[in-house]
Amino acid sequence: MNSIIMARLDALRAKMNEAGISAVIIPQTDAHQSEYLAEHWQVRQWLSGFTGSAGSLVVTADRALLWTDSRYFLQAAQQLDDTGIELMKDGLPGTPSIEAWLCANLLPDSSVGIDGMVFSVTDVNRLHDAFSAAGIILDTNFAPINDLWAGRPLLPGDSLFLHDVKYAGESASSKISRVLEAAAGVGANALFISALDEIAWILNVRSSDVPCNPVATAFLYLSADSSVLFINPEKVDEKTQAALSEIGVDTAPYESVSRFLALLPKEARVYIEPARTAHTLAAVIGKHALTGASVVALPKAVKNVTQIEGMRCAMARDGVALVKLFMEIERRLAAGETTTELDIDSLATRFRSQGDLYVDNSFETIAGYGPHGAIVHYSATPESASVIEPRGLLLVDSGAQYLDGTTDITRTVALGTPSQQEKTDFTLVMKGHIAVSTAIFPEGTRGDQLDSFARIALWKQGLTYLHGTGHGVGHFLNVHEGPQSIRLNHVPVALRPGMITSNEPGLYRAGIHGIRCENLVLCVPSNVSNEEFGNFYSFEPLTLFPFDINLFETSIMSDEEISWVNEYHEKVRTGLLPLLETDEQRQWLIRKTEKLCR
Amino acid sequence: MNSIIMARLDALRAKMNEAGISAVIIPQTDAHQSEYLAEHWQVRQWLSGFTGSAGSLVVTADRALLWTDSRYFLQAAQQLDDTGIELMKDGLPGTPSIEAWLCANLLPDSSVGIDGMVFSVTDVNRLHDAFSAAGIILDTNFAPINDLWAGRPLLPGDSLFLHDVKYAGESASSKISRVLEAAAGVGANALFISALDEIAWILNVRSSDVPCNPVATAFLYLSADSSVLFINPEKVDEKTQAALSEIGVDTAPYESVSRFLALLPKEARVYIEPARTAHTLAAVIGKHALTGASVVALPKAVKNVTQIEGMRCAMARDGVALVKLFMEIERRLAAGETTTELDIDSLATRFRSQGDLYVDNSFETIAGYGPHGAIVHYSATPESASVIEPRGLLLVDSGAQYLDGTTDITRTVALGTPSQQEKTDFTLVMKGHIAVSTAIFPEGTRGDQLDSFARIALWKQGLTYLHGTGHGVGHFLNVHEGPQSIRLNHVPVALRPGMITSNEPGLYRAGIHGIRCENLVLCVPSNVSNEEFGNFYSFEPLTLFPFDINLFETSIMSDEEISWVNEYHEKVRTGLLPLLETDEQRQWLIRKTEKLCR
Repeated sequence: MNSIIMARLDALRAKMNEAGISAVIIPQTDAHQSEYLAEHWQVRQWLSGFTGSAGSLVVTADRALLWTDSRYFLQAAQQLDDTGIELMKDGLPGTPSIEAWLCANLLPDSSVGIDGMVFSVTDVNRLHDAFSAAGIILDTNFAPINDLWAGRPLLPGDSLFLHDVKYAGESASSKISRVLEAAAGVGANALFISALDEIAWILNVRSSDVPCNPVATAFLYLSADSSVLFINPEKVDEKTQAALSEIGVDTAPYESVSRFLALLPKEARVYIEPARTAHTLAAVIGKHALTGASVVALPKAVKNVTQIEGMRCAMARDGVALVKLFMEIERRLAAGETTTELDIDSLATRFRSQGDLYVDNSFETIAGYGPHGAIVHYSATPESASVIEPRGLLLVDSGAQYLDGTTDITRTVALGTPSQQEKTDFTLVMKGHIAVSTAIFPEGTRGDQLDSFARIALWKQGLTYLHGTGHGVGHFLNVHEGPQSIRLNHVPVALRPGMITSNEPGLYRAGIHGIRCENLVLCVPSNVSNEEFGNFYSFEPLTLFPFDINLFETSIMSDEEISWVNEYHEKVRTGLLPLLETDEQRQWLIRKTEKLCR
Repeated sequence: MNSIIMARLDALRAKMNEAGISAVIIPQTDAHQSEYLAEHWQVRQWLSGFTGSAGSLVVTADRALLWTDSRYFLQAAQQLDDTGIELMKDGLPGTPSIEAWLCANLLPDSSVGIDGMVFSVTDVNRLHDAFSAAGIILDTNFAPINDLWAGRPLLPGDSLFLHDVKYAGESASSKISRVLEAAAGVGANALFISALDEIAWILNVRSSDVPCNPVATAFLYLSADSSVLFINPEKVDEKTQAALSEIGVDTAPYESVSRFLALLPKEARVYIEPARTAHTLAAVIGKHALTGASVVALPKAVKNVTQIEGMRCAMARDGVALVKLFMEIERRLAAGETTTELDIDSLATRFRSQGDLYVDNSFETIAGYGPHGAIVHYSATPESASVIEPRGLLLVDSGAQYLDGTTDITRTVALGTPSQQEKTDFTLVMKGHIAVSTAIFPEGTRGDQLDSFARIALWKQGLTYLHGTGHGVGHFLNVHEGPQSIRLNHVPVALRPGMITSNEPGLYRAGIHGIRCENLVLCVPSNVSNEEFGNFYSFEPLTLFPFDINLFETSIMSDEEISWVNEYHEKVRTGLLPLLETDEQRQWLIRKTEKLCR
């Protein structure tokens, strides 16, 4: 048995017992409802040993259970194997929600403890509704982890730096005005912002607190009179401090946020987003709070011309790095040099980091060879990493943070002569990719209305994929951002020119192979707009790298689909050729972008 | 000026003044939240003179305003012309909602009066939220219309009749059990049902209270111990009464419902649908109420094999009637006989009524010639009716109620040699129709996910239409029913085998022509279903009548689209030929279903 994990759980149970708590819920998030976490916030991982990016732990006096989704069923089963923690497979028909399980397994008048700093207002309301129907008490002040976790990593001290307006395209003071104006439109005279990417965007600052996400751990209070950034003071050097002062933003220690909110002026009407604000802080804001959807998400999502131009430049450098990567993979295969999935990750990082303005990867590289490609969020480990061979499909999903933009691209390539099934599967996925990329749609159209275009060719063969088709992408910010997305579920946000979204349909045959084809696309006005029927929009691909022309089965493609591939490859050639350094690279690209024909 | 209307408004104002009411809202609905109304409930029409099927009237001490949507802008402007009532164009950017207008135009502490019997719980909650923020009081007991409207039509006395189980396919007692069981699943031991089509479906009864909707005005209380149908007693003859008694349903006068609900047994837990239950009655039910989405809508929408077989038979008879209709239109045009849009309505009704099991039309026929086709809910009047000529497009949207099923079909035909624009427009609409009809989709897919398939060919040309693509259709019941639909807006209901939905994309060029192509389609399991990716569904067209082969522009159609038309026409031929009575009819159908080729 895993005695470390069991000892940690027992120590937690002792605290629960002291406090009269029957069950505790440990979520995978931080006080900012982040998707990716700094080490300090990896509480669920510390308590359970499970390293997946999603999943909540529930601990009672005699049981411990981890809920996670299908991406992590296999990994969780392995990592929890000797801990005594039971795996609850979220999303399967027989699996109750955490609330439902607790209602069924606790006696009335039991208390469930949570740390209200890592649960949003929305979360707490949901729990409260479920529990009150069952007579269960919710204690939102149960926060014993600091006491239990000896050597818990401190909040990140990475330095805060300014993101130059030559990249950002808009000054922080202009953004502050816009955001305060939006809040004023709903009757607020202040905002309290917890989302780390929103704070980074508004203030044109970045840091490296979270791997791949260039954000700083902070809270931001904005008002016409006084604005305060709550942040670890050691992160802020004099230059940054001076720049913040110049735009009227004071700094205060991260931990002082609660005291500050407790002393709001009487007339403060503070706009907060309940889904992203910690319950504990919202409770302090109390009656000063006005709630609603983020007023920052939309202006952040609609990129300005400087950002779009930066994204184009970043895409070109990213494409050059990928030419080097895939040439090197081919060279190694031909030379018989051993190459693992982990090597591909290192090579991608090395080639990208040779480019200008590179800062970091934008997420953990997914390099899945053969059956590993079918594991949607596969992350190779030294134990798991396959050695690639000159056959089968290799899926590489990777991206980078550059000062002028963020990239995210997936390509699936045949390492040998592709089989008929590989070609058919790949082409069905590309038909979906092309259908989204060539869509034209009226103003007001939401991403969920376009999602089926990505799937219909697969559906007609009895195939599908369960992830979304597209997510918003930040500008030198989180690779996943809202508010728009292209997905099966309803998303009440219309697509607008300036938004950048991924287009990444896929197909995963368990134990055989995985295919995903991903470009980032920019929403632009379409020239079919007219007076009688209104404005129409379309997408322009920003990503510059060829799809594997050996994998297209042209007999199941329409003329329009073939033309799209050829035109896209022409664009890739034009964009990348001038940046390539050697004749060999240029010849390689020319070969890889040869025209498809029937 | 229209002195009748003004006198009615003044009489209403006198009542408002007596009651201390500053503004009143008169909606276009009844105590059952019906879409189509018996004469008794046409209060808004009586007070305003406006006859449209949608729109609410607001009356204050010195103003009167009518909100209606774009379908009725023209008609409302004409009908309100001399009444002093202002037209508020719903859906235009500058038009406030009724709540917003009242908040902006009334002083705090003003009272707004409504009759809580014709507002649902959901409506009242929405008004309450809006008004309370502005300090306006909502009085839900302001119901002066009975006193004002001398000669107000009584509640309909049309007789109630049994819908034979040989058509319904399931006994009323089985339905009652299923519905009570569904309610028990959410903790209720009774249901109170206000929706007229739900009552008709559960009890296998019909009437003719509402034009085209074979329903009876009633409320239904269901529980294991005692079930009561609240209905005008003169509607119920002995035979029907006996049949109801046999399944444990008592009858009581319609007006006694409120007294009954006031005396519910202590243990009653009554399930109601807040969007379809009158505020006044829900208030009487009070703490006994459990609220949620209808538990009747889904079982009603999923048709059983008997209903489906009946729909097929009804479709065949309907197709025969349409053969006669369009042959007669052609004969009259050729003979130079004057034919108006109204004549087409009468002819359609005449030919349908010659078929077996015909009861009524299922909605008011829309026969729009040329520019009239572009008015989406056009209804010809003696003054407006155009005379058709051997040129241009004729749109005919019509349907019938048969004892074994309900039909709804739109065809757009060229009366002369079609122009290129007519052909292109028609073909773009058909591409959408075919894309929906040929869609295959996994279990769990909602109608809104398929809607864009109907539009993308139009969107790519900068064209669109603003109505939904498909609505659920009742079985010898309302031609519009939920819960599923295929539309732009989100509808959180998955399509399931057995559901019947319309597929009716369109294109409307103001002042030129309107095109709509509509079949009813049945959701069926698809043979692409498989173990790894799950169940898939597709659509089977039920409607049997050719699309106008002269209007297809095959140069912009794919091979698959051409094949679909040819296969559908083969099915129409096979289905209708055996039922046609004359050689002339058979020859006509064979000509009209000739194969498309390039």
